[in-house]
Amino acid sequence: MTTQNPEHFTAVPLDKAYRLLNHGPTVLVSSAHNGIQNVMAAAWSMPLDFDPPKITVVIDKATLTRELVEGSGVFALNIPCRAMAAQTLAVGTESAKLIPDKLIKHNVNTSSASRIAAPLVHGCVGWLECRVIPEPHNQKTYDLFIGEVVAAWADERVFNEGRWRFDGAPDELRTLHYVAGGQFYLIGESLLASSSD
Amino acid sequence: MTTQNPEHFTAVPLDKAYRLLNHGPTVLVSSAHNGIQNVMAAAWSMPLDFDPPKITVVIDKATLTRELVEGSGVFALNIPCRAMAAQTLAVGTESAKLIPDKLIKHNVNTSSASRIAAPLVHGCVGWLECRVIPEPHNQKTYDLFIGEVVAAWADERVFNEGRWRFDGAPDELRTLHYVAGGQFYLIGESLLASSSD
Repeated sequence: MTTQNPEHFTAVPLDKAYRLLNHGPTVLVSSAHNGIQNVMAAAWSMPLDFDPPKITVVIDKATLTRELVEGSGVFALNIPCRAMAAQTLAVGTESAKLIPDKLIKHNVNTSSASRIAAPLVHGCVGWLECRVIPEPHNQKTYDLFIGEVVAAWADERVFNEGRWRFDGAPDELRTLHYVAGGQFYLIGESLLASSSD
Repeated sequence: MTTQNPEHFTAVPLDKAYRLLNHGPTVLVSSAHNGIQNVMAAAWSMPLDFDPPKITVVIDKATLTRELVEGSGVFALNIPCRAMAAQTLAVGTESAKLIPDKLIKHNVNTSSASRIAAPLVHGCVGWLECRVIPEPHNQKTYDLFIGEVVAAWADERVFNEGRWRFDGAPDELRTLHYVAGGQFYLIGESLLASSSD
């Protein structure tokens, strides 16, 4: 897979962090606790607030990620791109409870985050470091987690000055939007609308 | 705008309803109460459960939609397409509190839903009829609403046999994914991944 390229890794101001998720990409949830780390795919996440930025994500009770997030109180949402479609599918379909070495098997590499003790996944195009805002009823009843975004990053080739800029960048960097059965859609062309049209 | 075409309006089985939102489209929230109806755009929604299907959506306290949804206990999520970009932007930026005739102004037409007393918006490519699952803490603290999907519909030209099928259909029917400042991305090309890649 693509390795992290420090040259393109740039900070996103917190008040623009919601825009990383605003167009509905599939994400990778990364987490770590007691020396164990994991990465799983999640199609169900969204922004929840602008400032301080908050996000939601659904994390099933059956997953190792659930244990790590509840144990550590932190997670990152990593936004994968076309070049990572195979890894995204793999970490979304294989459970680390059954395949403990799934990250090695699928060559999923990580680095340390800046503000939280969960790793960031190499080769993604956006990263949101999050602290869990404990909401036990939502977590238990709906598997719904709310996180406050405490740091955000992007690949400046496709996100800069507070916006995605996919047009003109390599298609390998376009975000993935999962359907089912291994099928994704890539994000497509930009369209500037005018409400007076 | 495109008018509803009954020829292409087809039922989506409830266990496949989540797939209408799985790829992260921007939605229109439609609602009605005491003879008043409204439509607003929302980029922040996601599936929450498969069966029975549930979804979440953020509805700000400042909106008329918020009053109508809390009053009626129902709403629909309508999934607009490229042909509706101007209307989507307009109903997302103009408040019915300030512009009471905004639906007429922007030629946003609706029809009755099947199971709920909120309208469905003509020209969309997917519709989810929802009943609010009351969660007062989420609604008050986060503007977060949880709905159970009680009926779902799609334009069969782009969603059939439980999946989106944008490739080969007119680009005017591709879903919208909002960024900011009137800019959307259209959903793009399909990609079939294999985890053994």
